[in-house]
Amino acid sequence: MKKLINDVHEVVAQSVEGFAAAHADLVISSGDPEALFISRAGGASAGKVGLVSGGGSGHEPLHGGFVGRGMLDAAVPGAMFTSPTPDPILAATKAADGGAGVVHIVKNYTGDVLNFETAAELAQMEDIDVASVVVDDDVAVQDSLYTAGRRGVAGTVLVEKIAGAAAERGDDLQSVAAVAQRVNDNMRSMGVALTACTVPHAGQPSFDLAPDEIEIGIGIHGEPGRERIKATSADEITDLLLNPVLEDLGAASGEQVLLLVNGMGGTPASELYIVYRRALAHLADRGVQVRRSLVGNYVTSLEMQGASITVLRLDDELTQLYDAPVVTPGLRWGA
Amino acid sequence: MKKLINDVHEVVAQSVEGFAAAHADLVISSGDPEALFISRAGGASAGKVGLVSGGGSGHEPLHGGFVGRGMLDAAVPGAMFTSPTPDPILAATKAADGGAGVVHIVKNYTGDVLNFETAAELAQMEDIDVASVVVDDDVAVQDSLYTAGRRGVAGTVLVEKIAGAAAERGDDLQSVAAVAQRVNDNMRSMGVALTACTVPHAGQPSFDLAPDEIEIGIGIHGEPGRERIKATSADEITDLLLNPVLEDLGAASGEQVLLLVNGMGGTPASELYIVYRRALAHLADRGVQVRRSLVGNYVTSLEMQGASITVLRLDDELTQLYDAPVVTPGLRWGA
Repeated sequence: MKKLINDVHEVVAQSVEGFAAAHADLVISSGDPEALFISRAGGASAGKVGLVSGGGSGHEPLHGGFVGRGMLDAAVPGAMFTSPTPDPILAATKAADGGAGVVHIVKNYTGDVLNFETAAELAQMEDIDVASVVVDDDVAVQDSLYTAGRRGVAGTVLVEKIAGAAAERGDDLQSVAAVAQRVNDNMRSMGVALTACTVPHAGQPSFDLAPDEIEIGIGIHGEPGRERIKATSADEITDLLLNPVLEDLGAASGEQVLLLVNGMGGTPASELYIVYRRALAHLADRGVQVRRSLVGNYVTSLEMQGASITVLRLDDELTQLYDAPVVTPGLRWGA
Repeated sequence: MKKLINDVHEVVAQSVEGFAAAHADLVISSGDPEALFISRAGGASAGKVGLVSGGGSGHEPLHGGFVGRGMLDAAVPGAMFTSPTPDPILAATKAADGGAGVVHIVKNYTGDVLNFETAAELAQMEDIDVASVVVDDDVAVQDSLYTAGRRGVAGTVLVEKIAGAAAERGDDLQSVAAVAQRVNDNMRSMGVALTACTVPHAGQPSFDLAPDEIEIGIGIHGEPGRERIKATSADEITDLLLNPVLEDLGAASGEQVLLLVNGMGGTPASELYIVYRRALAHLADRGVQVRRSLVGNYVTSLEMQGASITVLRLDDELTQLYDAPVVTPGLRWGA
């Protein structure tokens, strides 16, 4: 294992320290090893609904990279691929609370769901209203290594972006939670791995893929997908991902969508755009119009090579919220 | 070789096609296989100095990802790791010309330098004034596989950003070229590779590194660096890169700099921030103040794992130009 790290036990702490220093104009780190979280440099906005997300580290820029105006108020980085405990989630929730309540955006992994639930109960005891939205956009498998039901994957960035814009324009707690839920309900994803990734403290790849094998439906922690197949062309792989996504979504001709091609961390940008090119043509063939696009590394799996495709059905309100200004280390436009 | 591609001969063409479609609000592709270039969606601005760069593909987002307001007017993607020929450079130069002349920003590789020179001569014959600036920020080696003198590496993004802002505010041809030159003169870089990368049409890694070996001073095409050493900690590697950079730059206590930690394409963001953290501490120990920071994948080498560090000495004007709005697919702020 070759990595740009110092100590396998210090990867998250040192990375968050560097991240907060590099983006000190936008974010601060609690710096507390017992309750590590990242929040907006300016603190909570009075009267605004707070947005908190988090989960195991190793998916950067998710979630810390999406803290800032128009998106999250706080993010809780767990250990690598490991859910954060309730204490830091509670601390982040308190930091994000501006008196109007806090929405928890939780990827559907059993540990995350349980720990965010506990933190929400603790926050309620301190008179902070919490609404929770669970993201489960991955159509690949039902139940998985760490999950009952479907997994939450790359679409999480879209939930955070759009719900963040709703909170920023002044929506109340239930409305922000409702728009986050609406994004999740109208969105499906599926991914492919060309290579595995290595969690630092594990020291070896999380699974094995033969030199000519790829895994269709991979999870963002390397959990098993639908099938292993011989490596094939980008166009064929794109179709293998997009077909189940569109069938499950029930995308019909004439509909407008957002197309997200997400890199797993180790994929050259040039390859993501080749996947995007095919996805666009595939959608056009079905009469589905791509109204907005996002291509890049947003929800990664360390250095894994691979990509995922997310399709979100858009309406005018979701489009407007997606377009709204966002100023975070990982996503930035319009301001 | 497993890659998300269709045909090794179509990688650049299909990638550029996808890129232009994904960012149609910002850029257009010429779509001409004989003269492929990317330019601003709005065309050249009358009276503004045009900025053109280019070079072998495989370093995305450089250069096409930096076309847009406040940065490049056009970019010319060659084949993978191969200089573009004069024809597309000439076509891009004509597209970028708004009547005030065009600055060529050229990374110092023999093929790039020759082909941009030829294109500049052809443009002059069509009454377009061209000024050229050669970027050679890599302190690792003098002369290299494809280079006489020093190589142009990650600092190129800073030249493009700052010169782009100078052009946008209305500086004339010689002034834009002068500020680009000033950035190059005040900037040094050095990189490290943990793994090699594979050029699609080559089909095998461009060099071999043992499982416990890293290469200090690597070029962005995998050209040899200064030395191969046993893999060591991120902090030690950071010091091995930063020491020659700062010595060559002659950075003195009390000076203010921009610190760029650039990923080579396959490096997790978490690792880049660990390198950034150490670089910041190292600079602080020397009394050098980091006034601006940039961390991410800007000048990559396909899926190579590794990073480079660039230090740019700042003054008030360079800082102001760096901070100016930029709206490109790969770099965006302030607008």
